[in-house]
Amino acid sequence: MHAETFFFMQVTILGCGSANPTQRHQPASQVLEMRGKLFMVDCGEGTQMRLAHSGLAMNRIGHIFITHAHGDHCFGLPGLISTMGLLGRTAQIHIHAPQELENYLQQTLDTFCHDRTHEVLFHAVDTQQHARVYEDRSVEVWALPLNHRTPCCGYLFREKQGPRHLRRDICDMYEIPICYFDAIKAGADWTQSDGTVIPNNRLTTDPTPVCSWAYVSDTRYKPQVAEWVRGVDLLFHEATFPADDLLRARQTYHSTSEEAARIAQAAQVGQLCIGHFSARIRDEKALLEQAQAIFPRTILADEGLQIDIAK
Amino acid sequence: MHAETFFFMQVTILGCGSANPTQRHQPASQVLEMRGKLFMVDCGEGTQMRLAHSGLAMNRIGHIFITHAHGDHCFGLPGLISTMGLLGRTAQIHIHAPQELENYLQQTLDTFCHDRTHEVLFHAVDTQQHARVYEDRSVEVWALPLNHRTPCCGYLFREKQGPRHLRRDICDMYEIPICYFDAIKAGADWTQSDGTVIPNNRLTTDPTPVCSWAYVSDTRYKPQVAEWVRGVDLLFHEATFPADDLLRARQTYHSTSEEAARIAQAAQVGQLCIGHFSARIRDEKALLEQAQAIFPRTILADEGLQIDIAK
Repeated sequence: MHAETFFFMQVTILGCGSANPTQRHQPASQVLEMRGKLFMVDCGEGTQMRLAHSGLAMNRIGHIFITHAHGDHCFGLPGLISTMGLLGRTAQIHIHAPQELENYLQQTLDTFCHDRTHEVLFHAVDTQQHARVYEDRSVEVWALPLNHRTPCCGYLFREKQGPRHLRRDICDMYEIPICYFDAIKAGADWTQSDGTVIPNNRLTTDPTPVCSWAYVSDTRYKPQVAEWVRGVDLLFHEATFPADDLLRARQTYHSTSEEAARIAQAAQVGQLCIGHFSARIRDEKALLEQAQAIFPRTILADEGLQIDIAK
Repeated sequence: MHAETFFFMQVTILGCGSANPTQRHQPASQVLEMRGKLFMVDCGEGTQMRLAHSGLAMNRIGHIFITHAHGDHCFGLPGLISTMGLLGRTAQIHIHAPQELENYLQQTLDTFCHDRTHEVLFHAVDTQQHARVYEDRSVEVWALPLNHRTPCCGYLFREKQGPRHLRRDICDMYEIPICYFDAIKAGADWTQSDGTVIPNNRLTTDPTPVCSWAYVSDTRYKPQVAEWVRGVDLLFHEATFPADDLLRARQTYHSTSEEAARIAQAAQVGQLCIGHFSARIRDEKALLEQAQAIFPRTILADEGLQIDIAK
């Protein structure tokens, strides 16, 4: 399936474990596919192998966003960047991450990838600012300040609103010249030679609805997040611990299943996906049920899971 | 199985692919188990996950030997060291590696593991010297200078010769006091009160034969290696390419299946294991047959393979 022909997002989960890897789950990484481009969020150890397994083409990744400088969220970066070089990549790769990762990344590249053929551009993200950190023609990405043991932010990806759709038959009926179509798609009315105004909503239909995805990990329960992710189609929120492990969640600056669901409920998101499961968890279904009791449209993350966001 | 009760070596292959990881093979890492201790050689990305899968206890690893500063041989180190900390390790971990890895490792630990509870001690290995780089009561480890694109050495693990075995019944017959037993186990004869000398070989039997393992990767064909690994029980030798890909092997400073077998034949080793397979290889059996034509006691490396060395 070639995504360029479909206006939707697809999120692939490459890893949804937490710091201590298990045989069940792998360190954090997810990939957003959108209009033929791939955006990666977090890149834990082994991400490049799971990416290969997923069938997603490594060379379509242009931007990687890292939430924070804990190894389970970024130890896969050097290997991924090296392999891109081995595969002959020449296109730039952009790394958006907290400042403290820059020296580590630079030194690692100097030691291992000094003869690479592709440029690695580091963009420091201020994890304390709710701000737009990237945009291109079709998407914008916002940093979501989180509350973890080290500077950390989530990311919100929101497709940009496209133009209104022209009702070509109506426009032709009013004999509107083609050179005005862009203005009409942008919302302009049409004034006929006799002075009659044809309102825009007669000439166009609404633009294709935009899709959005938010990735919120790692963090203590932070109600403010709900404001920032209001109405997103898919919210990934960490649920490292079950509801009854609230104290441990507080101590380790993580969230419980119920807390993740409360954010989803307050933000009225389309769907909630929970993950970043503690290595102690034997029964993820319990977490799912706890979350669904608050927010029914909840699913469990799993390695290889692909979630479509279509409208 | 608890190895302390057996005097043998066991080698577990955690990864035997080459630089570009495939769905078939993982980056390089092998573990030697000997008298209850684990020694790791190389630590490519994802090693900690495969170690967990192997059932070998991470906390029994005291020393890790790295052959060279290419990512597929060491990108798993930060994750492994981090996880040791998360599991509450307090024992030191020793890293023996080429000098150029020290800064990278130090910076990585400073960024990610500054609050770890265990000490990481770096020992620079001179990859140009055929020299002993480690010894304890039961084993010695030698560096084997190789010919790769970057400073690189293999490693030879040789069990230390234990004492001769006392023939207790004979010693008792000669009424030898217990305080002399250590000297006799070390090879001394026994002189009776009447001046008669009882030769040591009447009082003892030969010591348990020692086991040895050599790990030779990555390297161009280097005949001198055969001298250093002469008679080892198990030789792991890289065979990145099939025999007919000699030119590529030369260009990339790797060996072919036939070259690996020629080293094994010249060194008269007990068994040859070939690995570090190029991602281009679809048919490893061909490499096996090429090697076996020269050295029949050849096997193919594979993830999870455990090879016992017993005598």
